[in-house]
Amino acid sequence: MENFEFYAPTRMIFGKDTHLQVGKIIKEYGFKKVLVHFGGSSARKSGLLDAVFHSLEQEGIQYVTLGGVQANPTLSMAKQGIELCLKEKVELVLAVGGGSVIDSSKCIADGVGNPDVDVWKFFTKEAAPKKALPVGTILTLSASGSEMSNSCVITNEEGGLKRGFGSSLHRPLFSICNPELTYTVSKFQTGCGTVDIMMHTLERYFGIGEANGVTDRIAEGLLKSVIEAGRIADREPENYEARANLMWAGSLSHNDLTSAGRSFMMQVHQLEHELSGMYPRIAHGAGLSALWPSWARYVCASGVERFAQYAVRVWNIDMDFENSMNTALAGIQATEDYFASLDMPVTLKQLEVSPEVLEEMAHKCTFFGKRTLAGRKELGEADILAIYKAAMGA
Amino acid sequence: MENFEFYAPTRMIFGKDTHLQVGKIIKEYGFKKVLVHFGGSSARKSGLLDAVFHSLEQEGIQYVTLGGVQANPTLSMAKQGIELCLKEKVELVLAVGGGSVIDSSKCIADGVGNPDVDVWKFFTKEAAPKKALPVGTILTLSASGSEMSNSCVITNEEGGLKRGFGSSLHRPLFSICNPELTYTVSKFQTGCGTVDIMMHTLERYFGIGEANGVTDRIAEGLLKSVIEAGRIADREPENYEARANLMWAGSLSHNDLTSAGRSFMMQVHQLEHELSGMYPRIAHGAGLSALWPSWARYVCASGVERFAQYAVRVWNIDMDFENSMNTALAGIQATEDYFASLDMPVTLKQLEVSPEVLEEMAHKCTFFGKRTLAGRKELGEADILAIYKAAMGA
Repeated sequence: MENFEFYAPTRMIFGKDTHLQVGKIIKEYGFKKVLVHFGGSSARKSGLLDAVFHSLEQEGIQYVTLGGVQANPTLSMAKQGIELCLKEKVELVLAVGGGSVIDSSKCIADGVGNPDVDVWKFFTKEAAPKKALPVGTILTLSASGSEMSNSCVITNEEGGLKRGFGSSLHRPLFSICNPELTYTVSKFQTGCGTVDIMMHTLERYFGIGEANGVTDRIAEGLLKSVIEAGRIADREPENYEARANLMWAGSLSHNDLTSAGRSFMMQVHQLEHELSGMYPRIAHGAGLSALWPSWARYVCASGVERFAQYAVRVWNIDMDFENSMNTALAGIQATEDYFASLDMPVTLKQLEVSPEVLEEMAHKCTFFGKRTLAGRKELGEADILAIYKAAMGA
Repeated sequence: MENFEFYAPTRMIFGKDTHLQVGKIIKEYGFKKVLVHFGGSSARKSGLLDAVFHSLEQEGIQYVTLGGVQANPTLSMAKQGIELCLKEKVELVLAVGGGSVIDSSKCIADGVGNPDVDVWKFFTKEAAPKKALPVGTILTLSASGSEMSNSCVITNEEGGLKRGFGSSLHRPLFSICNPELTYTVSKFQTGCGTVDIMMHTLERYFGIGEANGVTDRIAEGLLKSVIEAGRIADREPENYEARANLMWAGSLSHNDLTSAGRSFMMQVHQLEHELSGMYPRIAHGAGLSALWPSWARYVCASGVERFAQYAVRVWNIDMDFENSMNTALAGIQATEDYFASLDMPVTLKQLEVSPEVLEEMAHKCTFFGKRTLAGRKELGEADILAIYKAAMGA
């Protein structure tokens, strides 16, 4: 087990009707003015926004609003939020939405905390934030884990660059997680969320480092429960237990619990960022499910025993003691079949990606030749291109 | 899944040589004077205390010391610490030791934070703390989970009363966990720790509430890894991976991760507190291992399916689909056999408990007839006595 720090201080308020407490919770902390940041019209139509405004008003908390965040949240939207917060002297950003809204809120928080720095420099690692406005969330989508993580991913429309960076400063102070708010999430978005949650744990599980007792077992247990809950939520969108398990697993999958004592590089996420950077219409979860099987088969030889462990413990596949590669590949196939059973794409062709962009994507993914992707198997530009090509499908 | 709040903000600094960073870490937070609180002579003999003092001195942090904490830490020792901290204007209590030292430190922190209240009143629930001094820990024993929990157990020598209470205020700010510091823990104390860690998860697992996907799977995974690591550490005290797994699992077993969405009452802990309150020579873990099998068989009929799930998923026992009680009992037997394999007692007779004290213990355990123990099966005084009698053994 490698040395590690674990720090997940977000206060998680989880369960039915918890969003109605938001005004009370913010008042406890003593904040007087907040930005309510949200996405499209669904939060308004469902009555969620009205309930939030009402709760804030009841406690005498002032607020300004900024809606319209879309999937793959943009730098320009965040900059709009930064300006508004500075002008209005906002004390906390309240994200009402899923990962896109939360990431946009984190970026706003970073920008307000460091008004003299171009916030994009944090994403290009040219600068590091010194402060950040506190962020609170009301989660409406189980997927990104952003509600309990230190990570933030933003797309700069200039050049279609999608980049992420992690900072303890913008990790949410509190997150209100009511699984009922996800009942209306579509079948497709539920599938995307299930894939994304699994992927946050899988990326860690297949990071660098060998077997790791407690972290492995927790990761495997978490994956088993997500697989089961995802299958149920796909068929019964209003099954509370399934929605609750997806939501809680989503938070735990990205708060570093499943990587304690192990290094991880999020290779598949890096591959996917280029994809949805190039094609903003592609949902993150769909991009991940289309890429993971090809990535796994490509790197499998660098960790056969580990892929076999995954197959046996997560998918209950019998170990082939004479040829562990058979077991490893069966686990990858089981994962691919599971994604397909949720009607998630398992090739880039299904996503209507043009074979002509693969080289450009591979080049961008190396930051134009400036990096390789570290991991169990280090990936250079030729490897990345080979994975993209394999992922196109027959 | 029941509604819950999860809040585990302790910063965990985990791995080899991490204790050497203590001065630097305390300086980061800006504290200038600390109480170094510790137990017996082992921390001194091993050189650990000297290393801690050196690290503090290097960073210019002043300190006073208070040693001599023993198993089942006493109220009188904590009161001595409170007086010392108030007199010396200490800003943080640094616990160097295991659960006893950490709990004593928490009690000191509560007392210093509320100098006008008799600190014992927090344990009898006659009062609640309003503030607490920050607590930091350097952990030397994997067992109690106190390094990441809000709980604190103290024995009042007057009447041999052992009582616990939980408070977010005294939850450690940071915990430094170096598994190497546990290499010298004796075989017996290692066994006690393994039992205690398992018990913190088992008490939650067998709390109130039905199957709970992600929390169950995490608990089961954690138990499997503890069982394996405990077996290895028992035979190879300097096996880093085994020691590391016990240490990390110990922290996760008591930070409420394994009870998210479920109510739990710690019945076996309540039964054990009377035991080691009456016999301070009895180690907490030994008391738990002597009581759990009898407790489990007594309450099993109130949750056969759950005990069967435990048997199948944790012990890989084949499900008896025609008679799930067979499976349930086989899981309890496997647990008892495992405890015995670590040379831990599985009866009170092995602990030389007199049959004559059982009635008094049962009476004390109900707070002299003022309470029952809530749980999957509610336990009154007659039930408690029956469990104690069964635990005596043949």
